[in-house]
Amino acid sequence: MVILGAGPAGLVLGNVLLAHGIDCVILERATRAHVQSRARAGFLAANTVRVLDRHGLGEGLHRRGQAHGTCEFRTEGCRFRLDYGSLGRGEQHTVYPQQELVTDLLTRYLDAGGQVRFETEAVAVREADGARPRVEVREPDGRPARWQARYVAGCDGRHGAARRSLPAGAVRRHHRDPGISWLGLLIEAPPSMDAVGYAVHERGFAGHMARTPEVTRYYLQCGRGEAADTWSEERIWDELALRMRAGEHGALRRGPVVQRAVVDLESDVLEPLRHGSLFLVGDAAGLLSPSAAKGANLAVLEAELLAVALVDALAHGDPRGLDGYSARCLPFIWRAQEFSHWMIQLLHGSPGETSFQQALRCARIESLRTSRTHQDWFAEHYVGV
Amino acid sequence: MVILGAGPAGLVLGNVLLAHGIDCVILERATRAHVQSRARAGFLAANTVRVLDRHGLGEGLHRRGQAHGTCEFRTEGCRFRLDYGSLGRGEQHTVYPQQELVTDLLTRYLDAGGQVRFETEAVAVREADGARPRVEVREPDGRPARWQARYVAGCDGRHGAARRSLPAGAVRRHHRDPGISWLGLLIEAPPSMDAVGYAVHERGFAGHMARTPEVTRYYLQCGRGEAADTWSEERIWDELALRMRAGEHGALRRGPVVQRAVVDLESDVLEPLRHGSLFLVGDAAGLLSPSAAKGANLAVLEAELLAVALVDALAHGDPRGLDGYSARCLPFIWRAQEFSHWMIQLLHGSPGETSFQQALRCARIESLRTSRTHQDWFAEHYVGV
Repeated sequence: MVILGAGPAGLVLGNVLLAHGIDCVILERATRAHVQSRARAGFLAANTVRVLDRHGLGEGLHRRGQAHGTCEFRTEGCRFRLDYGSLGRGEQHTVYPQQELVTDLLTRYLDAGGQVRFETEAVAVREADGARPRVEVREPDGRPARWQARYVAGCDGRHGAARRSLPAGAVRRHHRDPGISWLGLLIEAPPSMDAVGYAVHERGFAGHMARTPEVTRYYLQCGRGEAADTWSEERIWDELALRMRAGEHGALRRGPVVQRAVVDLESDVLEPLRHGSLFLVGDAAGLLSPSAAKGANLAVLEAELLAVALVDALAHGDPRGLDGYSARCLPFIWRAQEFSHWMIQLLHGSPGETSFQQALRCARIESLRTSRTHQDWFAEHYVGV
Repeated sequence: MVILGAGPAGLVLGNVLLAHGIDCVILERATRAHVQSRARAGFLAANTVRVLDRHGLGEGLHRRGQAHGTCEFRTEGCRFRLDYGSLGRGEQHTVYPQQELVTDLLTRYLDAGGQVRFETEAVAVREADGARPRVEVREPDGRPARWQARYVAGCDGRHGAARRSLPAGAVRRHHRDPGISWLGLLIEAPPSMDAVGYAVHERGFAGHMARTPEVTRYYLQCGRGEAADTWSEERIWDELALRMRAGEHGALRRGPVVQRAVVDLESDVLEPLRHGSLFLVGDAAGLLSPSAAKGANLAVLEAELLAVALVDALAHGDPRGLDGYSARCLPFIWRAQEFSHWMIQLLHGSPGETSFQQALRCARIESLRTSRTHQDWFAEHYVGV
């Protein structure tokens, strides 16, 4: 079994396979140090915690993760908090930075004797429609090599070899781009409030998400195609303070911007999530906008489903789980996409938005502020996968 | 006080004013017979029943109306019922055809000594920005005449004199047209099922709504600009059976088509709902698509709010209620618009819909089928105003 990518999906998959005695190798383009420091997602859904616990992978997050169950919406003339952790199914998030989760998963995998080849870039997956797919790689020293296995799991993201190797027409790509971009910022400062902050402002969306006591994530809606480094720190703080309405609701805790990148709020879903012996997981299977922080959670869910199916196939000779993998995953994926797009529509005016559409958006926020059933629905879908 | 239009809004308003000793006249373009036979809405929300009861206007609907609390969705490969009457706030609809409600309200109003001028067409409202607005009318014999009063209530619909008389720029019109049209049908046959039926089909939406044991409403999505009379009865029944999947879920109970009209699913909201001494109520205030059957319910709610404010102003000299009328109504209107547009998006593929959008729509229906919190939210907003 070859797994492409040592992110949360690849490492969950690797750990579960290893625990069931299935021989596998993870091929990862980056160095170990890089993998263990990539700051990405940080909000783990309750189901993600259950999956990790089920396979004994949750120790670190229980020790160092922070329970989180509140978000705050700020709009013109209105601020309200939703204690989503006590609404809906009563589930909370666990805030645990992705690099820490990855470090836990990787340590565990290596301790159990798992193989990872770092700095080994998968170039292409060949003969995926046969029974012995081949992964062509570039070794750390630049030399070409190949790996062969019964199955290949593409956990290597949207730009990885798995996606790139799909022959034209083998898999359908459903795609949506609402034309919105965010400047994602990692700031070396404690959180400015004890809630996820969603600020809807005529100048664009701004967001606040806790990560650790020392580092906080912020988002600023920006123009499509804007370069992250054209934003001076002064402009970043001015816009954050303005859109978060810091004057009215409390100052932001400032610190140096330690990471910045522009993210386009694009989404796609591949269907089916399989081409022959090649399976797609996580961002390789579909790209979720970060609007509802669901990407990593969905990836972990898919990785577990694929792991169980692979164990059935490889250890027990039963391929039914693999045959059903795509159909099992797609409803979860579309439901997450649906909620993410609902969030996008809630938080952003679309370019060319009419006054009617704007008023509908305000009515939606107002409904969320005042309707308990709407809040229960929100809570269930916000934390759920 | 001059009231334009003897529909549900105008008649609720007239009855409440009359009960408080306020002198008023209703000007109605049509004959009494026509007013009492106009088949329009038929689903009264729980709040509408409470409003009517509060003013002693609910006797007929309690005697002859039918409680209704179920809707059924039919899509490809899936059919499910929502007993919305026992979800959310546990509120039901009362099915009571609009012409019967209008007959009740009119009888009561006339019995109490109220004046209605039938066949009297309001042509224009003049000097609405002054303290003695003037309504110019065409009398039954065609001669011009005028009515003058302290206030005028425009309850005369989307094409009425109230809207037409608003000077350019006095009131803002928010408008939305999703480009979808329905062929509305009244069929002389009992209902085909004991639920509101919503069929989502690749050929377009089809709907079923009970009215009376003898007459049933159906809707068929049709092309924009299609003439109602180009639809033969054969084609109507073929399309209804196909889209409602009658072969799979049970035959439709056929009967002659006794009324047909194409409705464009346009919406608008005027803001503010007042120009000087002229107040806008019901369809004159804003047009709701029939997708969630909210138009008449909203009209009754607005009529009561305006009636109470007018009593305060005219009987007690306190104009604050009138000053706040628009701001009181608009949140209800936008919330109803929001839900109606959610229904439109749920029930129709938009022209040029991508596979991504289509899958999101299926995910939304699937969420409604499976998520209790989503069902509670739906029930509350479906019956609520």
